[in-house]
Amino acid sequence: MTSPGSVGVVETSTARIFDDGFTTRSGTTLPFVDVAYETYGTLNHGRSNAVYICHALTGDAHAAGFHEGDTRPGWWDNLIGPGKAIDTDQWFVVCSNVLGGCQGTTGPASVNPATGEPYGLDFPLLDMSDFVAVHRGLARHLGIERFAAVVGGSLGGMQVLQWSLDHPEDLSRAMIFAASSRLTAQNIAFSAVGRQAIMRDPDFHDGRFLSHGTVPGKGLSVARMLAHITYLSEEAFQEKFGRSAQGGELSPNFGIDFAVESYLEYQGERFLSRFDALSYLYLTRVMDYFDAFADPGSLDSLKADPVKFLLVSFTSDWRFSTEHTRRIVRHLEGARIPTSFREIESAWGHDSFLLELPDYHATVKAFLDRAAEEIA
Amino acid sequence: MTSPGSVGVVETSTARIFDDGFTTRSGTTLPFVDVAYETYGTLNHGRSNAVYICHALTGDAHAAGFHEGDTRPGWWDNLIGPGKAIDTDQWFVVCSNVLGGCQGTTGPASVNPATGEPYGLDFPLLDMSDFVAVHRGLARHLGIERFAAVVGGSLGGMQVLQWSLDHPEDLSRAMIFAASSRLTAQNIAFSAVGRQAIMRDPDFHDGRFLSHGTVPGKGLSVARMLAHITYLSEEAFQEKFGRSAQGGELSPNFGIDFAVESYLEYQGERFLSRFDALSYLYLTRVMDYFDAFADPGSLDSLKADPVKFLLVSFTSDWRFSTEHTRRIVRHLEGARIPTSFREIESAWGHDSFLLELPDYHATVKAFLDRAAEEIA
Repeated sequence: MTSPGSVGVVETSTARIFDDGFTTRSGTTLPFVDVAYETYGTLNHGRSNAVYICHALTGDAHAAGFHEGDTRPGWWDNLIGPGKAIDTDQWFVVCSNVLGGCQGTTGPASVNPATGEPYGLDFPLLDMSDFVAVHRGLARHLGIERFAAVVGGSLGGMQVLQWSLDHPEDLSRAMIFAASSRLTAQNIAFSAVGRQAIMRDPDFHDGRFLSHGTVPGKGLSVARMLAHITYLSEEAFQEKFGRSAQGGELSPNFGIDFAVESYLEYQGERFLSRFDALSYLYLTRVMDYFDAFADPGSLDSLKADPVKFLLVSFTSDWRFSTEHTRRIVRHLEGARIPTSFREIESAWGHDSFLLELPDYHATVKAFLDRAAEEIA
Repeated sequence: MTSPGSVGVVETSTARIFDDGFTTRSGTTLPFVDVAYETYGTLNHGRSNAVYICHALTGDAHAAGFHEGDTRPGWWDNLIGPGKAIDTDQWFVVCSNVLGGCQGTTGPASVNPATGEPYGLDFPLLDMSDFVAVHRGLARHLGIERFAAVVGGSLGGMQVLQWSLDHPEDLSRAMIFAASSRLTAQNIAFSAVGRQAIMRDPDFHDGRFLSHGTVPGKGLSVARMLAHITYLSEEAFQEKFGRSAQGGELSPNFGIDFAVESYLEYQGERFLSRFDALSYLYLTRVMDYFDAFADPGSLDSLKADPVKFLLVSFTSDWRFSTEHTRRIVRHLEGARIPTSFREIESAWGHDSFLLELPDYHATVKAFLDRAAEEIA
């Protein structure tokens, strides 16, 4: 094993799956699905060392390493790599862009072969199980029948939970960070206001903005700024920015004066270059409607074929507080599913799951070490 | 004394004050200021029973009673009236719309006599002390030199604090609820995103929307929806709405489906009929820049002429949490100013200061009873 390092230069591949059509839970059939994905490490001969990474709302398939010429690594590079908590000397790691996304996987901005135009709002509404079905399609394409672990934070963690409920036979271990089994009214409210900002932008054109050669950038950046407030704790905002001026001294006006305003504007603008407004609508709506344990029989498959769970929450996360994680734990323990739960001390809020916090990464590593013993 | 009741039918009056011009802290002179105000109860012969009410961000002069034909009373009617905590059988109550507002007091939507057009963004940026100066102008106009108490919640409480610091000789008691001496980075962030939603609305027209015969309604309603999330606790949202559908069953789509979405949309739409987008910018910006104790000499006048303070916070208020109130208490106690502080148990968040909570109203009444003894 080398010392912690980088998986190096990587690139995103695309696989066309479901050539005979993919039918969503809502009953609409897409003629095929393209999935963007990356892999790190080497699949062993027994095909037993695969780990699947599910990304959060605005993530993508590029979890680790560097794209040619880039100076910033993938979004979870601090966790995934040689000698890191998800050790690519040991594990074969797969990460894909979700269905409905905008980073290479089929989504509302993709061209509908039936019309030659982007799907737009004709793209079907999605369900968490649709994400899982597409992940499974990619797994089959890669020749993997079972994962040693499936891992994700926030919306990624919700996918892990749904996968465990839908097809527990696919995974030995589920690792769910800063997630929820169902959103609260306040969670939905924040998403709803973000969507309203997008849909009320005159450049939204009822979702047909691509055909109009425009994007609802004002609304999308407002949605992103708003969401960002919920990703950090109040303490983190205060620590990072306090009441300091963006440059030198405060100079009262209606523009950007406080440092926190400059930060939010930067986040809003930067988002426009990498995210599609329709994907934002589709993916947030999957979260709103997600209610993992609503069906009384939801845990039946899992009871018959128990997956081992690790659930992690972060003390200052007010987007999906520890109470959200506790609810998942209660359901799992009520069904006698083996469940480890750790609340990690962190001042950084919801985004903590993306950060290199020693206790957190040690917890991940220890849980995966036990998986390694099982397949040894 | 009658049993708790209503002040009955009232109307808003307007006084023109500062006929020789009013110069703001920023150094701009307005030719005059019109102030919309209401009064309830009777001023006694000694003019010693006056109480001034300062309203919050989106309030107005109509605090109690009913306007002719209205079925809903003023915004603080549960607190103000015969036999109520602020008993109009005892107190002469004055409430005015703030400078920069849009409910009758001179503000950015008022006509600039120099141009015959609305001020728009030519209206000067305001400071908390400008609000206080205009309140004092109205007091002189009404022949009141000193108030038994000055009372306010949220932005209203900030005005009370500033008044106590600027002119402690004007008041015997200061009553400050759910307020702050300075906003945190997160507080500013929420306001900033609301303003961005307004200013990015194409109907904003660089603030000259009135001359274009339009209003930035989409942005203003998004700002209002967002702000509303911060006025209620997560628990209150969950209690009121949970995950219930707006009508019958959930029916997945991108429109209004969850009850909480319907509520927010209603709040956003209703706001348009009564509030001006420019006033929203001006008043939120006063809050952002407010930093009551920034000047090391800020407490000097108050030390020489102590006002008695009552500070109230609410357990579930995450907009201005108890920590904000504690900071004010620490400053006042450090200056040996007589200070009472109560944290009231409430599940309803920031808006608690507007609600009829028995402990809260009893606290207000007890504090005013002592004021009554002093002037008896």
